[in-house]
Order: sequence, then structure tokens, then C-alpha cells
Amino acid sequence: MISVDQAVERITRAFAPLPAEPVALIDARGRVLARDAVARFDHPPAPMSAMDGYAVRAADARSGAELALIGEAPAGRPFAGTLRAGEAVRIFTGGVVPDGADAVVIQEDTLARAHTVRINEAPRPGENVRARGLDFRSGDTLLERGRRLSARDVALLAAADFAHVEVTRKPKVAVVATGDELSRPGEPRAPGGIVASSTYAVQAMVREWGGEAADLGIVPDRTEELARLPAAVHGMDLIITLGGASVGDHDLIQSALKPHGFTLDFWKIAMRPGKPLIFGRLKETPLIGLPGNPVSAMVCAILFVAPALSAMLGVPYEPPLRKARLKAPLKANGKRQDYLRARLSILNGMLAVEPFPVQDSSMQKIFAHADALIVRSIDAPAAQAGDEVDVLLLNA
Amino acid sequence: MISVDQAVERITRAFAPLPAEPVALIDARGRVLARDAVARFDHPPAPMSAMDGYAVRAADARSGAELALIGEAPAGRPFAGTLRAGEAVRIFTGGVVPDGADAVVIQEDTLARAHTVRINEAPRPGENVRARGLDFRSGDTLLERGRRLSARDVALLAAADFAHVEVTRKPKVAVVATGDELSRPGEPRAPGGIVASSTYAVQAMVREWGGEAADLGIVPDRTEELARLPAAVHGMDLIITLGGASVGDHDLIQSALKPHGFTLDFWKIAMRPGKPLIFGRLKETPLIGLPGNPVSAMVCAILFVAPALSAMLGVPYEPPLRKARLKAPLKANGKRQDYLRARLSILNGMLAVEPFPVQDSSMQKIFAHADALIVRSIDAPAAQAGDEVDVLLLNA
Repeated sequence: MISVDQAVERITRAFAPLPAEPVALIDARGRVLARDAVARFDHPPAPMSAMDGYAVRAADARSGAELALIGEAPAGRPFAGTLRAGEAVRIFTGGVVPDGADAVVIQEDTLARAHTVRINEAPRPGENVRARGLDFRSGDTLLERGRRLSARDVALLAAADFAHVEVTRKPKVAVVATGDELSRPGEPRAPGGIVASSTYAVQAMVREWGGEAADLGIVPDRTEELARLPAAVHGMDLIITLGGASVGDHDLIQSALKPHGFTLDFWKIAMRPGKPLIFGRLKETPLIGLPGNPVSAMVCAILFVAPALSAMLGVPYEPPLRKARLKAPLKANGKRQDYLRARLSILNGMLAVEPFPVQDSSMQKIFAHADALIVRSIDAPAAQAGDEVDVLLLNA
Repeated sequence: MISVDQAVERITRAFAPLPAEPVALIDARGRVLARDAVARFDHPPAPMSAMDGYAVRAADARSGAELALIGEAPAGRPFAGTLRAGEAVRIFTGGVVPDGADAVVIQEDTLARAHTVRINEAPRPGENVRARGLDFRSGDTLLERGRRLSARDVALLAAADFAHVEVTRKPKVAVVATGDELSRPGEPRAPGGIVASSTYAVQAMVREWGGEAADLGIVPDRTEELARLPAAVHGMDLIITLGGASVGDHDLIQSALKPHGFTLDFWKIAMRPGKPLIFGRLKETPLIGLPGNPVSAMVCAILFVAPALSAMLGVPYEPPLRKARLKAPLKANGKRQDYLRARLSILNGMLAVEPFPVQDSSMQKIFAHADALIVRSIDAPAAQAGDEVDVLLLNA
């Protein structure tokens, strides 16, 4: 058995960033930048007015001055000429400040007449003018490679005139559930049978983390059925199996796939829930074998599949760990790193965490309602209410 | 001018939850439950073994006892008979505990022979048995209406045998940018022109918040062009305009749309960035007119469009507000609620926040790199480093 940290390290090391592909800006949110986005021009491209008012030379726009109105500069329609001493140009927010002008007097501080404007409040030089390049300058790195693009990032890229951006291709992930006892939701269930569930969650997680999930269905616990898998996973970047890692006395996934080119990296992690995790390769393609128990499978997906996807996407992986104050005591932990389902709250401005009283790994309802997992390291001593513990946030 | 809170209240009140529609479970993540999901059976449906071992009667499985092996119960293949005194059934994790048995001895605590098994460690009654209904019972509310489904929720619904769930239909949101100065990314720009950006961000936000965005492009600042809008928004649940709310001396959106059935609810909110926000209806369809300034538009979308979508989805709206310690002093605030772009960090386990030194609303690069907005209420006094302030988290 290896530790959780060792397993994450060995899994992460097995993946490299996938190739880049262009994507239209409208589809870029949630995708990962494959190269730095570098500005190709200054923004704003010229000095712009921050307000509606009059563009003037600060030197002659003293209080009480009467300036000659020589034109207009609405947004998108710059004034063509140059402003000289004693002149003003009517300007609107986002309008280009004309050559010769160095300040904008807001309209509330003026009195407009037919062909002149009277200045009631003298501006400072530069007042209400957004300098060329105030937002960004040509050559500035706007966003760095490896960044997952937010809606605000998309706006910034649009402002910088990127119609397309280069993003990392989405990892293709095949997900297959194994088990004689499994049926699909809505299908007839055999006596003692249960409905496959974690495969749907793992596929949803893969999509949430930026991958494409291919549903390979449910395969019975038989060598000859599992032997069909290699033909079904052509072109995939990762294969995820659910269950079959520890069926009775032997490991079915490994024994069924070994004749088809499966090589094992490691098997079994010192953790709870979810000891029997397989990591290896089916020929060239990495394979993560998650436990059959649904809660174990989902916890292991959060711990091990998320960093694998991050590695393929070229995103630095940071588990969402926080410190929180315990609201209930915990017993000393044993020889497996433990992940306790828990609820978060805010207590005196600090994060507080309360474990569910029953932690059986078959309890999916509790897991769905958990906000976080309390991480209990191997041999962690007993903890009291009020102690600080590590928590792993579940999806926000 | 009305306050931000009044505006949120009036906008939210104008929307009701949209009708429900069925969605396949695989597509349910991120959708909003339209009705409570109620369990229709007990889960597990029968007592199940939590371990690999032997199902026994605790009363006769004393240490040293030799029990007759009468069959097997792997997962999905229950043992058909009833276990009597002195008997044991080989059982695997997830196997149904046979009638008559009340405990499972883990295989490590036994010695298996050809037709018998020797018990080395006596079990307590119920040991390693998951009672019928341990996870959930028939009639339990598994997940409540108005819940945005997580991947774990999807697994729970699968376990409860929901092949489809009833979710709220996605709100259809038309987004149109107005402005003579605007071009699309990659298209030629006029002198003094800028690239439309906030429309892409607002569309991405609408999708992120659970809506469908329809891109109605860019419309020049002319009444006759805007007058085409009513024909383009048929079947939409919400119309969002960007810009045109305060062009020079008049409000173009209102004047252009009034002859086509536009009725105003309110205009102008006491906030910065983003005063000129319109809310009204174009005939029956609600219309939110966001400011033309991109940062103002995005801040207003976060404050006002997110709750509108929540109201249409039937999700209780909770702005993501937190308390954080200031890392730099702030000046006293004026007569508009201010939203300062800022970065978050963790300091001694507490959230800390540092505003960007320059807050001009034209700065999209800074906004893309912000983690939060510091909320400064009207007439808020000056604040010192170390003071606690309200922050609105930007998308995680």
C-alpha cells in the first residue's frame, strides 16, 4: 500500500499536457489557455474620455473661461481636427480625446451655449481622461497559459481582439462500470441487485473538470466481458474502471486485462474509503481503476482523477484544502488516511466543520449532502471540538 | 436612483420559476430540481455485507466454532436458502446477507476448509452488515426542489433508480450589445473604435448560471436599428442589452423601444461601477439594460442578472458574500455603493482582501485578475488595514 500523496504524485507524473487547439471566443469559458495571451496593441488605443463633458486644454479651462465649441467626439466617432487654445470639443464617455486636449470637464461643471461652453470648475491636467494603454499595453501578458478561462477572462480576450484562442484539447475519458449486481437506472433490477450510480457521477465530474466523458456502460464481472474493453477505448486519453479491483479473492480487472497489454503501476492506497485503487496502463493508455463502492469511487475520483485531468490540461493542480475548526471530537485514526464526510459552516468568521455521525461508505445520501471531507492522516491522534483540522472542499 | 438591494428585490420579484422538463440523468448535473426527489424503495434493498467473509448467526459463531459451508452470496447473486444453526455462507462485499444470518465474519478472522469454516474471532450481532435502508428509506426526501444538482447528487439519484429527473427549463436569455464604436473580435476596427467584450462575458455568465444565451450581436446606436429588437426576442425569458442606457444626453434604449411596448420599472442605481441600469419589460418580456462600460456591465450582471436567473430556475438566491480583513486602508465612500476590485488571500486562517490601487472602470485586465469585490456601502466611513469588510466572491 502506498500513501495518498505518493499515489497523486505517481498518477500526475504519468500525464503530460495534451496538444492545443483553437476555439472560438464564445466557447472559451472553462477551457484552459495553451499559451500566454499577449496583447498586440494598447488598450484603450487612444486617450479616451471617462465621462460625458467637454475636452479642453487644462491650461485655458480656468473657472469662468468661455471656450469655442469646435466639434463633437462621441464614442466611435473621433473628432478629426486638433484642439487649440480657447477651444473645446463636446465629448462622450468612451470618445477619443482629441489631439491638443488634455482634460475633460464633466458636463455638470459647465454651461453650454450655442457655440461656446462656459467652464464653471477648472479641471486638472489629465482629469477624466483614460490614458492610452491604461488597461493594458502592447506586449503585456494578459492571461497565462494553464489558466482556466472565466467569463471575465473571455471579456478581456475580446477587448484584446482575440476572435479565437489556443486552448488545450479536452482529455477524452472512457468510463466503464463493472459488476454482476449492477443495472442502469430505470432498468429491471435482479434480486439483490443495485443500480449503477458512481459511473454517472464520475462522468459528470470528468466534464466538470474539463474533460470529455465516454460512457462505456456496465460490464459483468467476467474475464471474457472485460477482455472487450481494449477495443472500445481506442483514442482515449484515460480509462476509468469502477469496481472489479477486488472481487472476492482476486483482482478481476488486472487478471482480465493483463493478456491484453495491461501493466500495473500500483494497487492499493492506504486510505478510507477506497483502498483498492489500481493505476497502470492498458498498452499506452493510462488506466485508473476506482473501487466499486460508490462513495469510495467518488472520493477516489476527487483525489486522483482530478489531478490526472489537470495534468493533461496543463493546469497546476491544487487540492481545495482549507483549515476548519472541529464542532465534534474525533477518535484517533488508524493506518489508513481517512476522509470523513462533513458539513461546513461559518462560526465567528472562521470555517467550522462537523462530521456526519455515521460514516459508512455505503451511504450516498450523506455524501451528496456533505460539503467537505475531513482529512485524517495516518495515526492522527484523537481531536477535540475546537481543534483545527484539514478539510477538502467538495464542489462549490 | 434606487439602492442595489432595492434593485435586486424588484428584479427578483419580476420572475417566477419556469416550467419543469424531464432530463436524462447523465445530463442532470448543474440543472435545478423542479420537484423533491423522493425515494421509492429502501437502499440498500436488503441487508448487505460490508466486507468479504462469511455470513453467520452471531449466536453460534463463537471463537473456535467450525461452521458448515452451505453456499455463496457474491454481490448480485443472493443465496437462495435460509441459514440455520451451525451454518455459514461465503459472502462478498455488497452480497445480500442470507435469511437467518445476522453477522459477517471477515475472512481474515476465519480459516476456510473444504466444506467448513473455522471462526477465529467471534462477531457481534450485526457486525459488517449494512441494514436494509441504511442509506435511505422509501419515502425519504433525497434532494429538495430548487437544488442545483452536483455530480454526487446525480449518483444518489441513480442509486434511487431515477433514469430521468424533472428539472426547471433553462431560461432563454437574449444578449445584444449596442454601440457605434463596437466591432466583433477579429473584425476591422474603426478609428477610435473598440472591440465588443462584455457581451461574450455576459453570455458565458448566463450559461454558467444555468441559462441558455442567444447572441443577438452588435446593434449601432440608432433608434431604427434598435427598433428591430422586438422581432428578434420572440420566445425569450429575458432580454439583456449592453450600453445605450445613457448615450450623451438621452437614453437610447428607452426612447427606441417605448413605441414598441417597452415599459420602465426603474433606471439608475446608486452604485459604482454601473449607475445607468435599466429594468423594465418589452411587452411581456423582462429587459435588463446593462451599462456599456464592460466592467460596469459585468459587475451589474453579477449583481442583477444572477438573481434573475435564480428566480427563473427556482433556486434561492444567496449572493456569495464573506467577511474579510482589509490589507490596505480605504477612503470614506460617497453616495453610491462601491464595488472595489480586489484580490483575496488567507492570513492566519482568515480571509484577507487587498483592493487594486487603481479602480478605473475601464480596466478589464485588473477585473479579470480580481477574486472579489469589496462592497462599500453608501457613506461608509474610511477603513483601516485590519478592519473587517464585506466582499463579494467572484466566480470560484
